[in-house]
Amino acid sequence: MLEAALYLFPVGLSDSAMTEVLPQVNIDLLRQVRHFVVENLRSARRFLKKVDRNIDIDSLTFTELSEHTPASEIPAMLAPLERGEAIGVISEAGCPAVADPGADLVAAAQRRGLKVIPLVGPSSILLSLMASGFNGQSFAFEGYLPIDDSARTKRLKEMQQRILRERQTQIFIETPYRNNRLLAELCQRLPGNMLLCVASDITGPKQSIITRQLSAWAKATYDYNKIPTIFLLFS
Amino acid sequence: MLEAALYLFPVGLSDSAMTEVLPQVNIDLLRQVRHFVVENLRSARRFLKKVDRNIDIDSLTFTELSEHTPASEIPAMLAPLERGEAIGVISEAGCPAVADPGADLVAAAQRRGLKVIPLVGPSSILLSLMASGFNGQSFAFEGYLPIDDSARTKRLKEMQQRILRERQTQIFIETPYRNNRLLAELCQRLPGNMLLCVASDITGPKQSIITRQLSAWAKATYDYNKIPTIFLLFS
Repeated sequence: MLEAALYLFPVGLSDSAMTEVLPQVNIDLLRQVRHFVVENLRSARRFLKKVDRNIDIDSLTFTELSEHTPASEIPAMLAPLERGEAIGVISEAGCPAVADPGADLVAAAQRRGLKVIPLVGPSSILLSLMASGFNGQSFAFEGYLPIDDSARTKRLKEMQQRILRERQTQIFIETPYRNNRLLAELCQRLPGNMLLCVASDITGPKQSIITRQLSAWAKATYDYNKIPTIFLLFS
Repeated sequence: MLEAALYLFPVGLSDSAMTEVLPQVNIDLLRQVRHFVVENLRSARRFLKKVDRNIDIDSLTFTELSEHTPASEIPAMLAPLERGEAIGVISEAGCPAVADPGADLVAAAQRRGLKVIPLVGPSSILLSLMASGFNGQSFAFEGYLPIDDSARTKRLKEMQQRILRERQTQIFIETPYRNNRLLAELCQRLPGNMLLCVASDITGPKQSIITRQLSAWAKATYDYNKIPTIFLLFS
């Protein structure tokens, strides 16, 4: 059942049970893989223990791939796969290779013609888009807004244009302790009739996904401080 | 366990088993929901039978919401939820409300302050992005390219600019019987050193996700005719 491939294993976004966010096949595959490339060793071990407490973690090999790993060290991580053994990629939260260093490993595997198999799991980008009511035929995820004020102003303007001209939903994130500040800033700097969806603690016990006009957000009571949150704009 | 909410239930993209692409919680919730809004009645019934052949389908209510449904009929579909009963949304394939008419129902629910709960499932956009090796910190999905030649040329140029200037991965689809033609066209009209990932039959038995330079695609042998395929560009 296990193929010689680079398997991309999503991890839960919150403390919810495995069965709430991962298909059974992910768990079956995780039990069989012997080699892992992980963003953080400690959280990957914790994840595997949660998947199945009987997994013999000491018999597995782990290589860390973080944003600090030199690019030159990445190709060697594919050695087990080049010998014909599966490798599993586990990131800290969410889907590997979507907004983390796993992408460089995938790119190296693709360059060598190795098989890559992505598995289903929770993505705050996709789940928030589904629940926003915004255009899903055209959308863009931009990561963090620039911090520098003039670059930030330019980006906000560009997003506004893409919403209005291209009907493209704009999705972005913020460092969690700055969430409230960002929300206030959006209310101040964008037209009141623009729609903002704020999706927080996705898949978690306090999940909240609310779409309102910015003029209504400006009057609303909220506190997203330190809660993982994703922001979507549309009109 | 079932809340008074609009539940968004993803559906498999291929004929793969439920447990390969859906978490157990989706199946548990589907067994409890009594009211459904579905893109296509026949495929929704087939999906529910596949989830659990003991579901008494005749005791459930179904309302169809397709691209032909007048917008004025949508708010009334929320009546069960306004009485406090859960509604499930089922699209034809993939994640509801991402590229289908479910988004209008979600928008209507959000306008009324009703709770919306998106569930985890397969998305060809996200799975292909994970396995492409491309930038997942910035990406855009654009749906279909325009058919009109001058609009198409303009879009291709715009995509190229966003790849080069913004390092934004560009994702799009084509009508399956035109896949081969689109691939040849991309090879012809874009620089040979640009990277193209072609992801076909995602989650299916013939899944193939391959990233190559356009100059290599131009020489490659392939046949994506009539196979659901998604295209990603980056450099």
